[in-house]
Amino acid sequence: MRLAELSERSGVSTATIKYYLREGLLQPGRRVTATQAEYGEDHLRRLRLVRALIQIGKVPVAVAREVIGAAEDASQDHHLRLGAATRALPHDPGPAEDDEAATTARRSVDALLEQLGWHGMHDEPSPALATLVASVAALGRLGYPCDTAHLLPYGRLAAELAVTDLDLVEEQPTADGQIEAAVALTVLYEPVLLSLRRLAHIQESARRFVGP
Amino acid sequence: MRLAELSERSGVSTATIKYYLREGLLQPGRRVTATQAEYGEDHLRRLRLVRALIQIGKVPVAVAREVIGAAEDASQDHHLRLGAATRALPHDPGPAEDDEAATTARRSVDALLEQLGWHGMHDEPSPALATLVASVAALGRLGYPCDTAHLLPYGRLAAELAVTDLDLVEEQPTADGQIEAAVALTVLYEPVLLSLRRLAHIQESARRFVGP
Repeated sequence: MRLAELSERSGVSTATIKYYLREGLLQPGRRVTATQAEYGEDHLRRLRLVRALIQIGKVPVAVAREVIGAAEDASQDHHLRLGAATRALPHDPGPAEDDEAATTARRSVDALLEQLGWHGMHDEPSPALATLVASVAALGRLGYPCDTAHLLPYGRLAAELAVTDLDLVEEQPTADGQIEAAVALTVLYEPVLLSLRRLAHIQESARRFVGP
Repeated sequence: MRLAELSERSGVSTATIKYYLREGLLQPGRRVTATQAEYGEDHLRRLRLVRALIQIGKVPVAVAREVIGAAEDASQDHHLRLGAATRALPHDPGPAEDDEAATTARRSVDALLEQLGWHGMHDEPSPALATLVASVAALGRLGYPCDTAHLLPYGRLAAELAVTDLDLVEEQPTADGQIEAAVALTVLYEPVLLSLRRLAHIQESARRFVGP
């Protein structure tokens, strides 16, 4: 297909596709004339992954280039390729503080991971772990409940969420499609989940506090 | 107690407390000398609610004033007072678009609410409903799965989350304390939940894709 069709099928503008080509995020097409190139399904798949990382995941171009390298490294297993892609997604753990609340939070989170049976989390720490510790420390500084016992039901629900999320990812037939979907759905389902939680609060509050 | 103690016990600086007094968010103390006033437990509770709304929930001062009016309106039941407080929390539904994806999203969300048995959501629409529709429309525009069948497990998990959340809120012994906790915990548990979800992805991906 030509550039115009690649743009139409991917939903990415031709100007943006040319930018991705210049930055080496998208492999060059097969040149057919001095000014035209031909693109295939491989280009379309790669373009969807680049779009998921940069436009949806807000990953910087340099990081996206690394992630694509890792995601396409056939010597790695699928788990590592998925992990490399989603690990690159930006996190905002806030400023790292080193007070008593931070120490307590680290201890509560370690006990939580132990009770959930989530092992190996410290081997190659995910940015999500730093965000979790920082968020728990913030709760503690403000005097809100955030010990292991309070965190545990959230951990259990997160495990159930992950099953639903990975089921969605596995609906994609190809390995590349799964990596792209993992990035996009991790990010795009966050506002879905948070707004459903707020609507569920309204229901649950009515159930508890409004008389029959 | 004096201003200094109120500041120490609430964790809010004296300058910020004076600002809340000027803005009418905190009721004046009982004047004891020309320059000093005495504050009580009522002030401490109100200050925690104001802090939850403004510092944690990022609610504008004018909105916080209205919310406090509603939250303290004893003629309303507890459910309405909780709802008034959490409804004010800012949402970013993104730009409202009116294309086919938006129409489809509205239809999917309506069917979802029906299947979850969440009635009355359109009587006094929550900002969370607009965010949900906009997020589902964004998924649809990018070609990702977001029909009612795909959304349903997320709705069910959100209902379980709300039970855990409201249990946490009900640990607070007073009605005012519950309203304050509902605001603070709605906001503060969002990064906890999202980072636990990302850690759970790593676990679930290892379980599915890494050989024994």
